[in-house]
Amino acid sequence: MASTRIREARESDCGDIMRMIRELAEFEKLTHQVKINEEALRADGFGENPLFHCLVAEIIPAPGEPQESLVVGYGVYYFIYSTWTGRNIYLEDIYVMPQYRGHGIGTKIIQKVAEVALHKGCSQLRLAVLDWNKKAVNLYKSLGAKDLTEAEGWLSFRFEGEAMRELARC
Amino acid sequence: MASTRIREARESDCGDIMRMIRELAEFEKLTHQVKINEEALRADGFGENPLFHCLVAEIIPAPGEPQESLVVGYGVYYFIYSTWTGRNIYLEDIYVMPQYRGHGIGTKIIQKVAEVALHKGCSQLRLAVLDWNKKAVNLYKSLGAKDLTEAEGWLSFRFEGEAMRELARC
Repeated sequence: MASTRIREARESDCGDIMRMIRELAEFEKLTHQVKINEEALRADGFGENPLFHCLVAEIIPAPGEPQESLVVGYGVYYFIYSTWTGRNIYLEDIYVMPQYRGHGIGTKIIQKVAEVALHKGCSQLRLAVLDWNKKAVNLYKSLGAKDLTEAEGWLSFRFEGEAMRELARC
Repeated sequence: MASTRIREARESDCGDIMRMIRELAEFEKLTHQVKINEEALRADGFGENPLFHCLVAEIIPAPGEPQESLVVGYGVYYFIYSTWTGRNIYLEDIYVMPQYRGHGIGTKIIQKVAEVALHKGCSQLRLAVLDWNKKAVNLYKSLGAKDLTEAEGWLSFRFEGEAMRELARC
């Protein structure tokens, strides 16, 4: 029987990762915001000073099975800093391809990130989720995450494009 | 007449910064979440591989005035990574002491962070704000920020403490 493993991404995974980044953006109905490409991903994540870390979920066929192993999910995270608790981790993206959902692969990715966090002395793992993505909201809550927007009233704000250039020019 | 300048923080500012971190947490009614101290701040922000960057707002007395210069605000930021747009900046904290508000010091801090962002090739500057902090919400909006929680439905989630340890143990 095939098994799933979560491992650190390699540069050669960037084609798969870029494809899944686009799939996730499509699911989130925000494809127009994707400006990045595979080349940038390789340079940014797999050079000397990587700007992010990436895990992939891989289906490994059982010995004797004819299929090749298959990357079916990913998680992108990086280290952030809280002035209240110090170094923490932010899980920027987590995604499992639709036909591989329902087998706990997403949970395994989050668990692995939590392991890294604890190993690096972090006390928090932050992430953002769209309010209409009820499956993800329920999964994160069932795993023990707290909705800070609901509990404390945190809103996400962003400056970008002309607003940011305008701001910098003042 | 005294003037205000925004400059990079030095290690010797950590006492002032730590005091203001506590004042900000008090204002946000979340003081119980502050676990950090000045020593950690010095080690984390001013060593060989700083985990964050910090700006301070300083009131400089006019020549001949007897007062010393005074640190009255700060901004803590770090670099993050968007799988849609690449390297960006997150403004973790921004604070101006109550008696110095209303003179555009907060705006100057944000402008400086936007300058750094553009200079480093970032296209976005993200931050979080509490929904009841109407003055801050209105300031960010007036400067051109978009409320992504309102516009797209993004919620902030966090794993911490026992929930995170539990997750990593699974």
